[in-house]
Amino acid sequence: MLKYQQIAAELEKYIEDNELQQGDKLPVLEMLMAQFKVSKSTITKSLELLERKGVVYQVRGSGIFVRRHKRKGYISLLSNQGFKKDLENASVTSKVLDLKVTKPTEEAAYSLNLGADDDVYYVKRIRYINGHALCVEESYFNKAIVPYLNREIAEVSIFTYIKEGLGLKIGFSDLYLKVDMLTEEEADLLGLKPGDPKLYGESIFHLTNGLPFDYSKIAYNFEEAHFFIQANSDFS
Amino acid sequence: MLKYQQIAAELEKYIEDNELQQGDKLPVLEMLMAQFKVSKSTITKSLELLERKGVVYQVRGSGIFVRRHKRKGYISLLSNQGFKKDLENASVTSKVLDLKVTKPTEEAAYSLNLGADDDVYYVKRIRYINGHALCVEESYFNKAIVPYLNREIAEVSIFTYIKEGLGLKIGFSDLYLKVDMLTEEEADLLGLKPGDPKLYGESIFHLTNGLPFDYSKIAYNFEEAHFFIQANSDFS
Repeated sequence: MLKYQQIAAELEKYIEDNELQQGDKLPVLEMLMAQFKVSKSTITKSLELLERKGVVYQVRGSGIFVRRHKRKGYISLLSNQGFKKDLENASVTSKVLDLKVTKPTEEAAYSLNLGADDDVYYVKRIRYINGHALCVEESYFNKAIVPYLNREIAEVSIFTYIKEGLGLKIGFSDLYLKVDMLTEEEADLLGLKPGDPKLYGESIFHLTNGLPFDYSKIAYNFEEAHFFIQANSDFS
Repeated sequence: MLKYQQIAAELEKYIEDNELQQGDKLPVLEMLMAQFKVSKSTITKSLELLERKGVVYQVRGSGIFVRRHKRKGYISLLSNQGFKKDLENASVTSKVLDLKVTKPTEEAAYSLNLGADDDVYYVKRIRYINGHALCVEESYFNKAIVPYLNREIAEVSIFTYIKEGLGLKIGFSDLYLKVDMLTEEEADLLGLKPGDPKLYGESIFHLTNGLPFDYSKIAYNFEEAHFFIQANSDFS
C-alpha cells in the first residue's frame, strides 16, 4: 500500500469511528498535512482517492465534506475486490459445485481474448452471506494468468488468492446487469421458485496491465441482493 | 466546459469515430500535447477524466489504452446526466402522470434534508426508450433549489432544464438498487403483469456544493432495463 492509500484508509476509518455524517467538514489541508506529516501532494492524492470512492466530496473554495454512509447490507457495485472484501462485517462463504480445467465457451473466449483451444479454470459456486444464498456464480479464469486453483481456495476467496498468493494486481472491470427470471436449476440452488426474479450480471475483470483474467456470470437471489452505487460529478 | 473536458470529449469522439478497440494504444503524451497545443498537466487531466469514465486505462510505463465499448442499449449507472444524455442515439420521451407542489414524504424529506413543511415538486412520469416503456419514475425536487417546473419541461428533460435553464451544476449521486416484483399499478403503466420482476432504484442527486436536490424512486421494466458499470482499479 502506498503512503497516500494508507492515509486515505486512516481518514476513512476516522470518519467511521467518529460516525461523521453527510456534510460534516473535514479539517483543512494544512491541518491534515501536519497531522500525517506528509506533503500537500500526498494529502491531495489521498483525498482524491476518497472522493472517487464516494467517501467525501470537495466543494471548491469551501472545503472537504463527508458523504452519506451507504445503507447496511448493500453491496457496492464499484468495488473490484470481491464480495468478501466488500462485506467485511458479514460472513461470506462459498459452496463449490464444480471446479475443473476446460476449454472456454464462446462468450468466455471472447470476453477473455482467448482462442477456443486455450485452457481456463471453470468454477461454479453458490455464495452465501451470513448463511443465506446470495448468488450462483460461474467463472472462467484464464489459466495462463491463474495457473492453479483448488476447492480450498474457491471456498474462501479466489480474488484474495490472486492478489496475495499470485501477487497479481486487479485493475478495472466491466459489469453488465439485467433483470430476468430464475431457471429451474438456479431456483433449486438458491432455494427459490423457477420464474422468480433474478438480477443477472456478467463481469469481466482485468489486471492493471489490461489483461482480462476472469469472466463471471452471476444470478443473484432477489431477496438478498441490494446494491449501492456512488457516482461522482465530473462525468459531463 | 473547461479546456481539459473539451479535449477529453474530442479524444472520446476520435476513439468512437475510428472504432478503436480494447487494447488499442493512444498516441504518447508528447504527441497529444502537440496535437491539442496544451500543457502536459491539461492532457493529463483529460486522460484522468477519460480513465474515470472508463474510456481508457493507463498502464504504468507502457501507455494509454482504449477500453472496450459498452454494449449497445445498456445504460451507464455511473452517468449523472440523466437517461436523455446517456442514451444519445435513442429517442427518450416521457409521459407526465402527475406534477405538483406538495410536502415531502418522510423518506423524501430525509433524503433531501428537508423538514416536513418544506415544499417539493413531485413529478411522476413514465419514460420511454424508442417508444418502449422503460420505467415509472417518482421524483421529489427541493423547491428551494428548483423553484419552477412544468409539464413541458418534465416531458423533455428536467436535468437539462436544471443545468441549462437554472444554471446549476449537478454533482455526485447515491443510487440504491434491488430487484422486486411489480405492483399492480406499475405493471399496468409498463404494460406488464403484476408480480413480474422489476429493478427498483432509489437515487439522491446532489449539486456540486453538496446540496441534495432530487430524490427519485424508479421501477424499471425488466425487459428493457440493461445496465452497464465500469469500475476502476484504485479502490483497494
